[in-house]
Amino acid sequence: MNKIEHIGIAVKDLKESNTLFKRLFGEPHYKMEYVESEGVKTSFFKVGENKIELLEATNKNSPIAKFIEKKGEGIHHIAFDVDDIEKEIKRLKKEGFIVLNEKPKQGADNKLVAFLHPKSTNGVLIELCQERVNNQ
Amino acid sequence: MNKIEHIGIAVKDLKESNTLFKRLFGEPHYKMEYVESEGVKTSFFKVGENKIELLEATNKNSPIAKFIEKKGEGIHHIAFDVDDIEKEIKRLKKEGFIVLNEKPKQGADNKLVAFLHPKSTNGVLIELCQERVNNQ
Repeated sequence: MNKIEHIGIAVKDLKESNTLFKRLFGEPHYKMEYVESEGVKTSFFKVGENKIELLEATNKNSPIAKFIEKKGEGIHHIAFDVDDIEKEIKRLKKEGFIVLNEKPKQGADNKLVAFLHPKSTNGVLIELCQERVNNQ
Repeated sequence: MNKIEHIGIAVKDLKESNTLFKRLFGEPHYKMEYVESEGVKTSFFKVGENKIELLEATNKNSPIAKFIEKKGEGIHHIAFDVDDIEKEIKRLKKEGFIVLNEKPKQGADNKLVAFLHPKSTNGVLIELCQERVNNQ
């Protein structure tokens, strides 16, 4: 794993939170994105070479809606940048981690992503992400 | 804020979690530290230029013990590296954030640290940290 690619934060109101995090970082978000398959609207902030992703649910069945209902607003996941997501999934399965989607799927920010179940990782939802290249 | 300095993860058993995160990252932790004032034992892993800090409570009044009691194991805080922590505290107070300790205190890993109250930051406990230099 190369670095923390981003930290995902579940929020109730993306517009309000964009203002809040602008005050925190002293810089506004640099993009927004709608990920229909996950039922989320997202915005991204840069902090050095890392990113913060804010996530708002777009429907009540979205994983973000369920997370907020159970735990309230707050940190939802950590995403690590990897060079070869399929190789990393194989390695982690062999190490005993529960991979939620063994076939990488399209995530926000032009990434292929896969998630590890928090019950195998000390309660932490971990995302692996690999930058997509044009021919993928 | 320069980058994510580290992410703090609350764990019940540091020894077991050190083994778990070694399997996750493919590398063992590079140091351990006991922070008496906070009632925690910590270990550190490197992921590129970021770090992961595991925290185990050393007594039942430790903030980590209380966190686990309430929310279970998982992500406890995000720490951002800053150049001048006192200046950053002043700026953030002015922006309306609640700073838990207005005078920076000694944290793990040779840092001066200050925390922002999660109720002013969308449920996220945020740590500011500045590397100590010898004359501080």
